[in-house]
Amino acid sequence: MNIIISKVELRRIVKNARNDGKTIGFVPTMGFLHDGHLSLIQRARKENDIVVTSIFVNPTQFDPNEDLDTYPRDMESDCELMASAGVDIAFFPTAESIYPHGYATYVQVEGNMTQVLCGRSRPTHFKGVTTVVTKLFHMVFPNLAYFGQKDAQQVAVLKQMVGDLDFDVKIVVCPIVREGDGLAMSSRNSYLTPEQRTQAPVLHRSLCKAKEMIANGERSAAIIKQNIEKKIDAIGSAAIDYVAVVNAHTLETMESLKGEILIAVAAKFGDTRLIDNIQIEV
Amino acid sequence: MNIIISKVELRRIVKNARNDGKTIGFVPTMGFLHDGHLSLIQRARKENDIVVTSIFVNPTQFDPNEDLDTYPRDMESDCELMASAGVDIAFFPTAESIYPHGYATYVQVEGNMTQVLCGRSRPTHFKGVTTVVTKLFHMVFPNLAYFGQKDAQQVAVLKQMVGDLDFDVKIVVCPIVREGDGLAMSSRNSYLTPEQRTQAPVLHRSLCKAKEMIANGERSAAIIKQNIEKKIDAIGSAAIDYVAVVNAHTLETMESLKGEILIAVAAKFGDTRLIDNIQIEV
Repeated sequence: MNIIISKVELRRIVKNARNDGKTIGFVPTMGFLHDGHLSLIQRARKENDIVVTSIFVNPTQFDPNEDLDTYPRDMESDCELMASAGVDIAFFPTAESIYPHGYATYVQVEGNMTQVLCGRSRPTHFKGVTTVVTKLFHMVFPNLAYFGQKDAQQVAVLKQMVGDLDFDVKIVVCPIVREGDGLAMSSRNSYLTPEQRTQAPVLHRSLCKAKEMIANGERSAAIIKQNIEKKIDAIGSAAIDYVAVVNAHTLETMESLKGEILIAVAAKFGDTRLIDNIQIEV
Repeated sequence: MNIIISKVELRRIVKNARNDGKTIGFVPTMGFLHDGHLSLIQRARKENDIVVTSIFVNPTQFDPNEDLDTYPRDMESDCELMASAGVDIAFFPTAESIYPHGYATYVQVEGNMTQVLCGRSRPTHFKGVTTVVTKLFHMVFPNLAYFGQKDAQQVAVLKQMVGDLDFDVKIVVCPIVREGDGLAMSSRNSYLTPEQRTQAPVLHRSLCKAKEMIANGERSAAIIKQNIEKKIDAIGSAAIDYVAVVNAHTLETMESLKGEILIAVAAKFGDTRLIDNIQIEV
């Protein structure tokens, strides 16, 4: 595995690969890799000649009061995991090379899609995501780019951006990978106390119950939402940020379930904000 | 010359060309081509295997009260001029294909650079420019892209964007092309009445006088500015929008002239807003 720090060097290597007719699969991450990330890498490994993984804790996608400084990092473990998963190029850019002095350009998906769900409590988050992904796409120049369904809103926003800005990149979405008890894998799970860790699977359980209700014919978004809220509230220490039932592509709210539906939840366990979701076709 | 309407078709052709190792020079325009545009095309013709010119009157770079609907168009003449200048691909996208229903993504250079000069009276103009140029770069995938020094602020903003977003494209800036009496060529010159047409060269004359003063040792931005304003004001029918003396790269104002300086003017002759500039190294 080739470890690259310089974006100039990265560009030289990927351009040579493209000129040789090779396809490039790209897995952008913030590191502290878990089985969720590895599932993206494995899929990219199957579908491309060259697999590039980037590890960059992107400051512009953290709001000022968020956990940028304490976000978990483990470069050594990440390198071992990437190498054994068959990554060809591990890209570790520095914050100074990504956002040099005088940096001023941002890419933004405007409107409802970035204002709802996580956008309500994280107003600048998606602007940071779309900006850094644009930059990384320009550096890596991938054919296919892999993202996890865990970040459902991010996936919707990035698909909108790729279509709107005519990127010649296809977004590939991979299923959520879960722990044995159903908790969606996340680097932020490492923040949880043992007690919070036993409580956190309530998010997934509440979504499974919603799925069951829909399978049994329930079509009221309000009733589904209330049921999920009740289940999470029953865990005294969990503070709901949102429970949303929306169109899976536009993220617009719906009253009566129809089409491809995203049910998404965010809740805080102590200081740790976790998200989860389920996508259902009705 | 290949006339292309479909962005899918365009991408197919340019990808094949790139795969064959050919270089692509790109000249984005809003049509109604004049010798200024042709100088860009001729330069692109010399420096690239394939020359792509786009003609698209981009609605997002017009502010609501501006001349989008009346902006001059002449597709037939444009095609003849492009063909005789050696353009390989003339790209005429439709507004619906560039901004389809539900379009939501914008690229913006934030801060001083897009707020000063033309940004003061055209607050959304550069956001429209950077968004459409991003899209066109993604469609055309050029090695080199050609812009005129006439739009000096546009050039500074696009260079900032290309650097910030890590585009693998080099911006080539070509000198202003002028009529015999010094008036900078512009599609908007066609709006001028015969009387306004005889008055409009005052912009260039005032800049030439400023250059002469600087050559003779004047270093006060305020004095240079006043002198230009006096000259333009002397033409009763010209209404100054701005006269600015700024750093040519950052567009920051300066009191004492030093380094690469841009002196830029904008004035209205009736309803027609004209711009001109001169760049001087002190």
